[in-house]
Amino acid sequence: MARINENYQKLRAGYLFPEIGRRVRGFQEKHPDAHVIRLGIGDVTLPLAPAVVEALHAAADEMGTPEGFRGYGPEAGAEDFLIDAILEHDFAARGVTLERDEIFVSDGSKQDSGNIQEIFAGDCTLVVTDPVYPVYVDTNVMAGRSGSADAEGRYAGIHYLAATEENGFAPLPPDRGVDLAYLCSPNNPTGAVMGREVLAAWVAWAREHEAVILFDAAYDAFIQDPSLPRSIYEIEGARECAIEMRSFSKRAGFTGLRCAYTVVPQQLLGRAGGERVSIHGLWARRQSTKYNGVPYVVQRAAEAVFCEDGRKQTGEQIAYYMENARRLREGLGKAGFQVFGGEHAPYIWLRTPGGMSSWDCFDRLLREAHVVGTPGSGFGPAGEGYFRLSAFNDRDRVAEAIARIQRVFGGR
Amino acid sequence: MARINENYQKLRAGYLFPEIGRRVRGFQEKHPDAHVIRLGIGDVTLPLAPAVVEALHAAADEMGTPEGFRGYGPEAGAEDFLIDAILEHDFAARGVTLERDEIFVSDGSKQDSGNIQEIFAGDCTLVVTDPVYPVYVDTNVMAGRSGSADAEGRYAGIHYLAATEENGFAPLPPDRGVDLAYLCSPNNPTGAVMGREVLAAWVAWAREHEAVILFDAAYDAFIQDPSLPRSIYEIEGARECAIEMRSFSKRAGFTGLRCAYTVVPQQLLGRAGGERVSIHGLWARRQSTKYNGVPYVVQRAAEAVFCEDGRKQTGEQIAYYMENARRLREGLGKAGFQVFGGEHAPYIWLRTPGGMSSWDCFDRLLREAHVVGTPGSGFGPAGEGYFRLSAFNDRDRVAEAIARIQRVFGGR
Repeated sequence: MARINENYQKLRAGYLFPEIGRRVRGFQEKHPDAHVIRLGIGDVTLPLAPAVVEALHAAADEMGTPEGFRGYGPEAGAEDFLIDAILEHDFAARGVTLERDEIFVSDGSKQDSGNIQEIFAGDCTLVVTDPVYPVYVDTNVMAGRSGSADAEGRYAGIHYLAATEENGFAPLPPDRGVDLAYLCSPNNPTGAVMGREVLAAWVAWAREHEAVILFDAAYDAFIQDPSLPRSIYEIEGARECAIEMRSFSKRAGFTGLRCAYTVVPQQLLGRAGGERVSIHGLWARRQSTKYNGVPYVVQRAAEAVFCEDGRKQTGEQIAYYMENARRLREGLGKAGFQVFGGEHAPYIWLRTPGGMSSWDCFDRLLREAHVVGTPGSGFGPAGEGYFRLSAFNDRDRVAEAIARIQRVFGGR
Repeated sequence: MARINENYQKLRAGYLFPEIGRRVRGFQEKHPDAHVIRLGIGDVTLPLAPAVVEALHAAADEMGTPEGFRGYGPEAGAEDFLIDAILEHDFAARGVTLERDEIFVSDGSKQDSGNIQEIFAGDCTLVVTDPVYPVYVDTNVMAGRSGSADAEGRYAGIHYLAATEENGFAPLPPDRGVDLAYLCSPNNPTGAVMGREVLAAWVAWAREHEAVILFDAAYDAFIQDPSLPRSIYEIEGARECAIEMRSFSKRAGFTGLRCAYTVVPQQLLGRAGGERVSIHGLWARRQSTKYNGVPYVVQRAAEAVFCEDGRKQTGEQIAYYMENARRLREGLGKAGFQVFGGEHAPYIWLRTPGGMSSWDCFDRLLREAHVVGTPGSGFGPAGEGYFRLSAFNDRDRVAEAIARIQRVFGGR
């Protein structure tokens, strides 16, 4: 009988969001009339921007004509029109020069951040923050790099750095070298953002230890302070030690449209025995063998995000969500929660009141306030006693959720 | 320095199609006026069917409204409307009953056939046909299952079954058990189709040896004889031993739109130590961790392939390509080639004349006829001395290609 990948058996419980889904469905089956407000999964709610819809229409028409039809796209995952727009608006505008072939367009940062480990050695060591976006850990568990989990859910083979109130939820690098470091800024789940100095410390550490930083900047568009780095390549020396992942999902409402990209600089090298090998070449080979690019209509939609109307319209969407975040911060603060994040990120990170566990807080919010959030412990043991709320929702529902939470937990 | 996955260094040369691309670009730089006809990569050429374009427009409009907007899709990769259409038209219509949760929708059969190996043990044994679609082999090389390649390109750790004229390019199972068997029917590259008896022999073999068949039916829509099986589940007992991959790429011109699906039956079990484990559960976990579903607009486009207009229009596209195949068979036969395939598949498999090597034939066709095909040896050593032509092109270009090849190789 075909033998399975037994590393899957080391995975803890279900992936977090399916477990939340199961509990919410269970609640709704028992209480079909309850009006549940979802601030759990970080999914956008505003419709696609008009410029994006217009681009989809134009591309659909093109695809229906003999002249405009496109089949397989280029190996980079997208055509130059999209890659050039990315280079100009996401990098050149911030003083970062990248080459076309350093941009690999894909259907999601979740995919890229899950797949990137494939090009590294099976026994690579890795460091993640705790709490952490589960995909970084789970994909390494599946690949056999983790060892077994302890009772709290920490894997023996993974080095964790606690993201705490004391370090502003942006831990500094460890005191020893590892092969791979996963960083996420603005952070999911804590909403914290890494400042220039912290990021520079990571780049210096990576260069000293010849590590590779996997920098997930899927939420960069939510940074409100222009002096904060949006790309790790704004830090000198990062081209030699970092891969960066960016996404259209949250910046432009593409969670149902699927477009993202990963930057792998040409200078980035890894080691195979004594030899130095281009990591750029490995990722190019991985993608050309296992991937076939983003739908042409979606490439055009993503391009439209960068046009004048697209930037204005998606900018308004981000402002809308960030006003939600501001109200959540204020309203939950009044309900007695200690509130973090939500200033440069669409996530609010709450300390649960009275030492309540994260899942107890989840169940109580669901049961009494009919509000779905995400238990902090689902992101790692250091998330225990915390809770994540997302700013992605309708303004009225956010207001209603705040009012309900204040009723349950008491407003000041 | 981060250590890389050294298995990548065992990969032979570039992935076949990039190598072809390099040679064609080199030729065109030297001969900018040459009108090159591409019958190489199996990429469709007809524009999207009107029903598909219409569905894209409707879905784009939906996504632009608060009521119609969709974010992340379900974990199965698509919503029920698409899964139900698949169940009805691709399976129930052929007497096969499957459950909704057995269908996993994705952005490509290349991806699925490349990713599926992840859920099996790192030291699984595997059998492939030779010639073979390179993705099956390369993704297992990357995962460390292959050992090293010999001078001909055969990997020590992979069991090859030669697909030859003698066995009708549809080899029977080996005389021993292996964990995984990759089968492709209608076949890429040979254009051969597996009849019911051959397929039944494979199912019986898999059940006897508790192997899993990975059945790639991406070209099923090109089968002209309704008595030939389109799905492996038409063979009794296949639910206990087979995973099937299907695609919209060729059947409906979706190579630039990206939609496919993989069937993993609930009954399918693998082994972990002494324990039996649901392979369905493993794939569900893999997809929920590393994938985020097909764009909603593309789901609606795929659904439209099944509506009455969609079936009629895509049926006409297939008939168009198959008439190209008929003409290629006839024309190349007249040019002295021995011709296989092209009757239930969009690929013609030619024996090169006079014992010419596949790449020599490629270079000669490119240089003298300005026609791009695919060297058979690129698909494996048993493909040496063969050549693949694709029926995906404009009728006039196919006619012109035939005429040029006849001029170069002589018509009878």
